[in-house]
Amino acid sequence: MSSLSVDNVLGIKYLTKEDIELIHTTADQFKEVINRPIKKVPSLRDITIANLFFENSTRTKLSFELAEKRLSADVINFSAGQSSVKKGETLIDTVNNILAMKVDIVVMRHPNPGAGIFLSKHVNARIVNAGDGAHEHPTQALLDAYSIREKLGSIEGKKIVIVGDILHSRVALSNIYCLKKLGAEVKVCGPATLMPKYIESLGVEVELNLRKALEWCDVANMLRVQNERMDISYFPSVREYVQQYGVNRELLDGLNKEIVIMHPGPINRGVEITSDVADSDQAIILDQVENGVAVRMAVLYLVASKIKHQKS
Amino acid sequence: MSSLSVDNVLGIKYLTKEDIELIHTTADQFKEVINRPIKKVPSLRDITIANLFFENSTRTKLSFELAEKRLSADVINFSAGQSSVKKGETLIDTVNNILAMKVDIVVMRHPNPGAGIFLSKHVNARIVNAGDGAHEHPTQALLDAYSIREKLGSIEGKKIVIVGDILHSRVALSNIYCLKKLGAEVKVCGPATLMPKYIESLGVEVELNLRKALEWCDVANMLRVQNERMDISYFPSVREYVQQYGVNRELLDGLNKEIVIMHPGPINRGVEITSDVADSDQAIILDQVENGVAVRMAVLYLVASKIKHQKS
Amino acid sequence: MSSLSVDNVLGIKYLTKEDIELIHTTADQFKEVINRPIKKVPSLRDITIANLFFENSTRTKLSFELAEKRLSADVINFSAGQSSVKKGETLIDTVNNILAMKVDIVVMRHPNPGAGIFLSKHVNARIVNAGDGAHEHPTQALLDAYSIREKLGSIEGKKIVIVGDILHSRVALSNIYCLKKLGAEVKVCGPATLMPKYIESLGVEVELNLRKALEWCDVANMLRVQNERMDISYFPSVREYVQQYGVNRELLDGLNKEIVIMHPGPINRGVEITSDVADSDQAIILDQVENGVAVRMAVLYLVASKIKHQKS
Repeated sequence: MSSLSVDNVLGIKYLTKEDIELIHTTADQFKEVINRPIKKVPSLRDITIANLFFENSTRTKLSFELAEKRLSADVINFSAGQSSVKKGETLIDTVNNILAMKVDIVVMRHPNPGAGIFLSKHVNARIVNAGDGAHEHPTQALLDAYSIREKLGSIEGKKIVIVGDILHSRVALSNIYCLKKLGAEVKVCGPATLMPKYIESLGVEVELNLRKALEWCDVANMLRVQNERMDISYFPSVREYVQQYGVNRELLDGLNKEIVIMHPGPINRGVEITSDVADSDQAIILDQVENGVAVRMAVLYLVASKIKHQKS
Repeated sequence: MSSLSVDNVLGIKYLTKEDIELIHTTADQFKEVINRPIKKVPSLRDITIANLFFENSTRTKLSFELAEKRLSADVINFSAGQSSVKKGETLIDTVNNILAMKVDIVVMRHPNPGAGIFLSKHVNARIVNAGDGAHEHPTQALLDAYSIREKLGSIEGKKIVIVGDILHSRVALSNIYCLKKLGAEVKVCGPATLMPKYIESLGVEVELNLRKALEWCDVANMLRVQNERMDISYFPSVREYVQQYGVNRELLDGLNKEIVIMHPGPINRGVEITSDVADSDQAIILDQVENGVAVRMAVLYLVASKIKHQKS
Repeated sequence: MSSLSVDNVLGIKYLTKEDIELIHTTADQFKEVINRPIKKVPSLRDITIANLFFENSTRTKLSFELAEKRLSADVINFSAGQSSVKKGETLIDTVNNILAMKVDIVVMRHPNPGAGIFLSKHVNARIVNAGDGAHEHPTQALLDAYSIREKLGSIEGKKIVIVGDILHSRVALSNIYCLKKLGAEVKVCGPATLMPKYIESLGVEVELNLRKALEWCDVANMLRVQNERMDISYFPSVREYVQQYGVNRELLDGLNKEIVIMHPGPINRGVEITSDVADSDQAIILDQVENGVAVRMAVLYLVASKIKHQKS
């Protein structure tokens, strides 16, 4: 198999296991590229990509931009701050306008869940979802899975716990879809108030106790505490969160094995994890960042391949 | 004739009919380029262009940026938000500083009418006006005329009505100059309170009644309702505006012919035009956007040609 | 000698005289490049540079960006406004994240004095300081010295006075280090309240009287009045400043020689210098701007050479 089963990368939910594996094996090659002295390939020289960010995002945007430049694509940036959105234009009109300028791929972050899916039904473009509200963040899950695969050899059969605010996290949802499709066992751990009601329907077990979750798992993915996405009233205070769900050295030393620690960044040192844990060899946080560029290159490359195929 | 009669594109007022036709025939070639699989040409590889936007503008800026990148120019963006302007520097000093860094062409949007003209008298650079207050927006008029020419074969003798707030619109003024130079008949239509006193001195007739205007014309260019440019007190309410100057399907079906509908964007759906009109085959709104890139490539290419001629 | 004695350009304090001279002779070559019709060289085609600006700066950022593009580097821009910094991430984490994306050189402006030095001890990257609070602004001093050398043939033995708010000026401090290392005599001139206590320990004489300072010097570098860096209460009013420390034509005509006038920009016309002085042939303000691009190309080129050497 050499191409994706989908035209748009809107969520892990819509990808097959084979799609994910194709992205990972393609990313293997790009990871080699970005570690060479000459970190660029001419693959997308004839492709124009617009980064439409209707919500701020430093690291995801930077990672996509670097991926695009390493592929030699032409890149156009559009942020909501400067945008026509404020002038009452509809999302479809905004995107159709950009497409009329002969843009091939739209990378979009939007505060509304399902924005990319909605858009894909109304416009004639390839869309890559860079995060849509509390819904999905597919490239983050793809790079997380890639990083586990790199560290542990494979994902099949591995035990992974996702810790934190599961309710509001697009990273959690995309990770669950991705890891389950690749054959991992997945648990989620966090305050009961931050657990979505549908969680068990995803084939995921809830473990409210962090120590038990860590004793069970091979990998712990520590979600960022995102105050901006929470209804203050029902969230435990940060102090309570740290006491019950923060990972520190003592907790890790109490386990009878070494688990892998992940974090999608940016880290609140001393909240989700302590500094000594973040900087230890157990943590693969910076590997995740590095792999992010390679995985996004793979996604864009595979999406563009389908366009080129149609063009010729 | 193979070069512009002017060094700077500051307004349609200062272009000859031959200049406009040269821009259009040059744009024909670039339109072919941007519809090829490989959408770039190396024409301006040795040219540096600074986009100085002292006022927000998503679509015009994006269109210029894409035009510049398709021409392989080096592009530098400068927005007023980040700028020294706040530090009390004069416009001439700001631009002279940028030019001292060996920038060849300045694309400038500025809130003050005549800013580009003022600047062109004091600095040694090629300047393209991307909108100066309520004065001119020459590339918009060039792309509007180009789109009419593309749709109807020519502009000579065609009847075009510009509908809306004529008083505050740089799009209206530039369109009037451009269409008149190309031999079109032009009327303006809108509330009497939004008609400039000098309008008839431009050789343009005023028609206050929208139905009559539409019955007369081949093309209706529907201006955006721009609340930000209006003195609230003397403007009709939006509801009144829609009733008297909004175009809907019923109104168009009542005519004994099919007219062309244009809009410079962004559209307020349900205000200037209804959604079914915007999305119909009569509307060439997205063609205008596509042609914008080709026309701006032509303008920049022709302005740069004069520089290269001087260099060699 | 063909390479810098340091890996990072954090301040003039840490450069040797030979380093400065190497940067200047390298800049000579790049100045030729940017004055050719084709202003680019492929030197840094395989280098990625991130511009991290935690503080606004139009002209320094533009100058670095142009230098990077003229060298064909891949450029990534990161501004604090959009940044994770607001989300409570540490500076080291922010930079390590960017570096994990395979960025080679970080150009950083930061409001905190010593931010670059601190960073250089904790991360594995090449860092160029583009201004750190009231501490240093090394590339500004390098381009100032380059402009004096260009105008007067050499710096050794020349008499240079720096006029203005010495206390809060990173430009003043970097200039003092740079000019002293190159063998100039340096005085500072300004209100006693704006003189740092340590100033004489730098081998610099204080002259409170502007006329006497100008009579003594070959070159006067007029610092910008930066209200944003001052404690209003102990600063003379702007009117008093102009009377005592503003340079005008009459003052210059009263000298028995022609001195060179410099200004790092942006100018407050009528405050530090009057308009006729700013626009006279004595002023080399726009030469400074032009030389800024060449000097920054030299700095980046020399820093990158060390990386390439390590890579191969």
